[in-house]
Amino acid sequence: MRLLVINSNTTDSVTARIAAAARGAARPGTVVEAVSAPFGLPLIVSRADWLVAGPATLAALADRRGSYDAAIIACFGDPGLDAAKELAGVPVIGISEAAFHAACMLGRRFGIVSFTAALRPMFEDVLAHHGLASRCAGFRMGPAFAGDPGLVAEQRAALLVDLCRQSVEQDGAEAVILAGGPLAGLAPVIASQVPVPLVDGTVAAVRLAEALVGLAPPHAAAAPRPRALTGFGDPLARLYAG
Amino acid sequence: MRLLVINSNTTDSVTARIAAAARGAARPGTVVEAVSAPFGLPLIVSRADWLVAGPATLAALADRRGSYDAAIIACFGDPGLDAAKELAGVPVIGISEAAFHAACMLGRRFGIVSFTAALRPMFEDVLAHHGLASRCAGFRMGPAFAGDPGLVAEQRAALLVDLCRQSVEQDGAEAVILAGGPLAGLAPVIASQVPVPLVDGTVAAVRLAEALVGLAPPHAAAAPRPRALTGFGDPLARLYAG
Amino acid sequence: MRLLVINSNTTDSVTARIAAAARGAARPGTVVEAVSAPFGLPLIVSRADWLVAGPATLAALADRRGSYDAAIIACFGDPGLDAAKELAGVPVIGISEAAFHAACMLGRRFGIVSFTAALRPMFEDVLAHHGLASRCAGFRMGPAFAGDPGLVAEQRAALLVDLCRQSVEQDGAEAVILAGGPLAGLAPVIASQVPVPLVDGTVAAVRLAEALVGLAPPHAAAAPRPRALTGFGDPLARLYAG
Amino acid sequence: MRLLVINSNTTDSVTARIAAAARGAARPGTVVEAVSAPFGLPLIVSRADWLVAGPATLAALADRRGSYDAAIIACFGDPGLDAAKELAGVPVIGISEAAFHAACMLGRRFGIVSFTAALRPMFEDVLAHHGLASRCAGFRMGPAFAGDPGLVAEQRAALLVDLCRQSVEQDGAEAVILAGGPLAGLAPVIASQVPVPLVDGTVAAVRLAEALVGLAPPHAAAAPRPRALTGFGDPLARLYAG
Amino acid sequence: MRLLVINSNTTDSVTARIAAAARGAARPGTVVEAVSAPFGLPLIVSRADWLVAGPATLAALADRRGSYDAAIIACFGDPGLDAAKELAGVPVIGISEAAFHAACMLGRRFGIVSFTAALRPMFEDVLAHHGLASRCAGFRMGPAFAGDPGLVAEQRAALLVDLCRQSVEQDGAEAVILAGGPLAGLAPVIASQVPVPLVDGTVAAVRLAEALVGLAPPHAAAAPRPRALTGFGDPLARLYAG
Amino acid sequence: MRLLVINSNTTDSVTARIAAAARGAARPGTVVEAVSAPFGLPLIVSRADWLVAGPATLAALADRRGSYDAAIIACFGDPGLDAAKELAGVPVIGISEAAFHAACMLGRRFGIVSFTAALRPMFEDVLAHHGLASRCAGFRMGPAFAGDPGLVAEQRAALLVDLCRQSVEQDGAEAVILAGGPLAGLAPVIASQVPVPLVDGTVAAVRLAEALVGLAPPHAAAAPRPRALTGFGDPLARLYAG
Repeated sequence: MRLLVINSNTTDSVTARIAAAARGAARPGTVVEAVSAPFGLPLIVSRADWLVAGPATLAALADRRGSYDAAIIACFGDPGLDAAKELAGVPVIGISEAAFHAACMLGRRFGIVSFTAALRPMFEDVLAHHGLASRCAGFRMGPAFAGDPGLVAEQRAALLVDLCRQSVEQDGAEAVILAGGPLAGLAPVIASQVPVPLVDGTVAAVRLAEALVGLAPPHAAAAPRPRALTGFGDPLARLYAG
Repeated sequence: MRLLVINSNTTDSVTARIAAAARGAARPGTVVEAVSAPFGLPLIVSRADWLVAGPATLAALADRRGSYDAAIIACFGDPGLDAAKELAGVPVIGISEAAFHAACMLGRRFGIVSFTAALRPMFEDVLAHHGLASRCAGFRMGPAFAGDPGLVAEQRAALLVDLCRQSVEQDGAEAVILAGGPLAGLAPVIASQVPVPLVDGTVAAVRLAEALVGLAPPHAAAAPRPRALTGFGDPLARLYAG
Repeated sequence: MRLLVINSNTTDSVTARIAAAARGAARPGTVVEAVSAPFGLPLIVSRADWLVAGPATLAALADRRGSYDAAIIACFGDPGLDAAKELAGVPVIGISEAAFHAACMLGRRFGIVSFTAALRPMFEDVLAHHGLASRCAGFRMGPAFAGDPGLVAEQRAALLVDLCRQSVEQDGAEAVILAGGPLAGLAPVIASQVPVPLVDGTVAAVRLAEALVGLAPPHAAAAPRPRALTGFGDPLARLYAG
Repeated sequence: MRLLVINSNTTDSVTARIAAAARGAARPGTVVEAVSAPFGLPLIVSRADWLVAGPATLAALADRRGSYDAAIIACFGDPGLDAAKELAGVPVIGISEAAFHAACMLGRRFGIVSFTAALRPMFEDVLAHHGLASRCAGFRMGPAFAGDPGLVAEQRAALLVDLCRQSVEQDGAEAVILAGGPLAGLAPVIASQVPVPLVDGTVAAVRLAEALVGLAPPHAAAAPRPRALTGFGDPLARLYAG
Repeated sequence: MRLLVINSNTTDSVTARIAAAARGAARPGTVVEAVSAPFGLPLIVSRADWLVAGPATLAALADRRGSYDAAIIACFGDPGLDAAKELAGVPVIGISEAAFHAACMLGRRFGIVSFTAALRPMFEDVLAHHGLASRCAGFRMGPAFAGDPGLVAEQRAALLVDLCRQSVEQDGAEAVILAGGPLAGLAPVIASQVPVPLVDGTVAAVRLAEALVGLAPPHAAAAPRPRALTGFGDPLARLYAG
Repeated sequence: MRLLVINSNTTDSVTARIAAAARGAARPGTVVEAVSAPFGLPLIVSRADWLVAGPATLAALADRRGSYDAAIIACFGDPGLDAAKELAGVPVIGISEAAFHAACMLGRRFGIVSFTAALRPMFEDVLAHHGLASRCAGFRMGPAFAGDPGLVAEQRAALLVDLCRQSVEQDGAEAVILAGGPLAGLAPVIASQVPVPLVDGTVAAVRLAEALVGLAPPHAAAAPRPRALTGFGDPLARLYAG
């Protein structure tokens, strides 16, 4: 199967890192193509960022229409997810969504651990959106972080192990989601120090996307009612041209 | 006060109609400016439409930055709302949000009535997003509608009165929201035939936006961290330029 | 418009303070009349107090029937609110209710801050009654307080700033309600030290009551079925006399 | 044990009927004293009625203070319940509360059946207040009823059997609450025609009140802080006099 | 009445202790018979234990079929409860279920206190199963415990008093459940040091089981459809033999 | 990978049918072993059945311990699921659980369709257990069915298509679960007549089990504390023997 992985921001070095992680998680027969958002922002940290990342993500999907069997939105917060599901005609899954569902299947209640409390409101929003708040044992977040996001996983690894253990021992978590883009790849590094399954969003999304392909009999995708879409460039305009 | 009313689609005739409705609801001292989305779609009916309408709505807000004391997103589904609240530095309210909160203050449980069941998923989404599902007595929606949206309020007025009454008598609604853009302006026409308050989203949003101006002491707006935003044209790029 | 503000207790000095606060928040054209409960208790702190304050509040409303366009129940806990909405024929809003709805419109999740944990059960009750628990980021309450309520806002101002900041930084609150009668008027004093909107219940209620007048087309008020009401004095007995 | 049963309205014939029902449900050692509210309304049908019934109910409790081991508030909607629990120093239970908890213990999900949809909003309120909405399989209510409440149980018995069966067969109810004062005593009459337990609020309250006496070790009751209470007559004033 | 009390584990000394506690709580006319599970485990601490305890509990019920008027499942977590209710034809109540419902009737929100956080996931599960999470003010649990369960109540009594007080003062609990088998009997010992009702599951279950007998008119029990049940021994096989 | 599929009942012909369905859904590299419960019941239709099926299912898992990489509990209601997850040391998933999570990932709200309303309580229970009630658009169930379960899918195919369409058009379902063992295999037959994805529990479970293997880094399984387990035969006794 062909799996399109969309980095919702425009930073190609991040896209390359996501591509490597996705390929590492994929089955032999899965061909991973990873793309950056064709426009938008180099980094997504606020609600406004998340908003503009939505159509940028959808544009990436529209641009490759027909060339993939499933797609992943590789950005916590799942920008553009509901619209992508509506239009894609193939399974589309976000990495937050994937982490939540995988964690539910691996344990009765899951903790959400991240390096900074600044991400909590966004995780609360997306958790509520997916309707899984009752399965969440709680958040354990580190203090404000002003350094280089690319180094935070290494710099705060010991703190994160502590937070994972608190989540298990004090909150009763039976699986833990390591949340936040900069923590991608950390799970196997610290797994031996945490007594429950550690879930990485990208890995979960790759495995679940593979599972969803062919899970349900095909049905017709909902093409948008043809209309003139302005301001978003070619791929989305073509999608709406009918 | 200066109130910016944003029609999240690009159809100026709809904007003119919304402007008239907003002016009819506004206090004497309120100056209403209504604008169309600077780009996007002429009509918003699906989740994908709603997604692209988000940045288009935010662009309209950014374009007039500094020229208004509050803003209204005059599109059911409230596209771009959370981002707009984050960035605007002044109150921003969506017409779904306004209708839900106004209805809550006017009655213990509210019904949602619209002309077609096709809108129900979107209303369910936005109701859940605002966390008010427990205040909703239920939906009463008409059958599929394939005609001219501009005429549906008139053509289905009798049906809508019936649905409102069912909502009151069978579901226990103590206020009813007439939901869906094409029903704007219908509330005063049929109010005498319905025994509870009928809420119109645009009217509610105007009144509540006026109320929110000055309600809380001013605090600094959160300007976005400066970054290069591409693909959305001038107003949003400037907003992100810092 | 004429706005009746009811202090649900019988202490006229408190009524005078509420009246001043309400007038400070009201628009130029709003005529504020503030009244004490015609009977009941000088101070409301327990569930039993709250219970007896309900008919006392309703009696104040009944006594002035026809002389106001909207009314405010200026007592946290909103005693008598649902009955008042049922009977008044004009909008009635409680200050807890107003604070919750205003805070929702100003931020995605709101914190509730007060000077003493002793008030938490009552706030939990009224929050649940209004169905908005999922919008609340959490409570931050000071320790037991045995001093003069009239001085607590001043004495605990620094503590309250700390609690507000904890609510924002640790709980992710995007608006904060300063809850409890004795904190009325504190919001503008400490607002500059808190990075999100601070909501005062009385101010919120005045602004929202003004908004609700005329928001929905008039409908007939529900007069009570005529019956002999005993034990509550003239205004309520007349209301029930039909 | 001595059980005080309070009819929250002032109609002694209703009190007599409740007394008989309570005595029929009580154990041999239980002495039932039934009293009417000392003031208030002859019939309770609206939210305002319910409000004034609260202090009237509390006054009846205060008047007999020290003469009972537990008390029942024999009025659907449980007026004054939370205040009564706070002050009584002995168990107090409402008939709605009792019906909900008993039904939960008798079946996984319970239906609520009544003779008229007009009562639904009140039942929804009290169900939500007790936090048991997720255990309720749904409401099945008859149409508007304009006749003599004293005859409705008989006149609508066949309809009520049908509604009970619909609740079981279509909603999956495993216990059914016959709700509404006028249906007291109907359960044994129609029980053989309904395949699940039928719960009567007064019977449930008597049995559960007996159970609660001595269930937990005694603890000090919370006497109200002494204050001058005006407007409610002797028993409540004395209660507050300290 | 005849009350069957089932210890879901196979340890007769525990059964004897439960029997004594149940007899201490029962009314004079109640004949308590306590039995151990006829097979299964000597101690129940995990989800797998709880699972095998379910049919073992049901077998005890089946074995004495016809010899009791109500039954209690005296094991936190209520193993086999829903099946037992389905088949018994008489009221069956679990001690978790009983504690939750009793606590709800004794206070608006209840705390759950136990000696070790290890039990929290199981209590969360059973609390959610009974749908009463919104009535729970929170958990206060001691640290890991590796000693003799038979001594923990004595060894940690002071800690448990502290946890109860924190539940009341910081979480707003108005009743507290002392949860976990090894704490049975502790409530009267520490009650004078805690300002709200302390609920013991076994005592609550005995009192509520007595209350449920005769509460609703009898209805036919659901006998299982006759089938060959293998692997569970005589009592369950006979139950299924029809 | 080696996938153990457990039919929680003892009927080998059903096991054979499940095995065929699982093999049809599995990837080439997946080796499916299907086993019947080693003891228990030939058909599972009630809560008591479900209870005894739990340890029977766990025994099947214990019997093959070490011979599979993941397991599926192929019985709606997911008997034994939480215990199996606790003990297996590899992913275990139930077909209800799988259907719910897959449906969530394929559409915003899912409908549950089955041939008879008699199954609704069990589906409600398991839906609530997995915490996904807010994602469910509603149930559409056929009338009581007294015929041969093996023929119901064929006999009621047209009715089921109608129910699926009602779920989509009236309830807003964006995916539909065909629930109930006898409907296994029906999805591809009727998919072309339903405009949204149709989810079959067994297929979903196979695909999701494959996805979960290796999704999270390995962690130590929780072996039960060694104890003498009686009454369940060899595999479970050995599991507990340590």
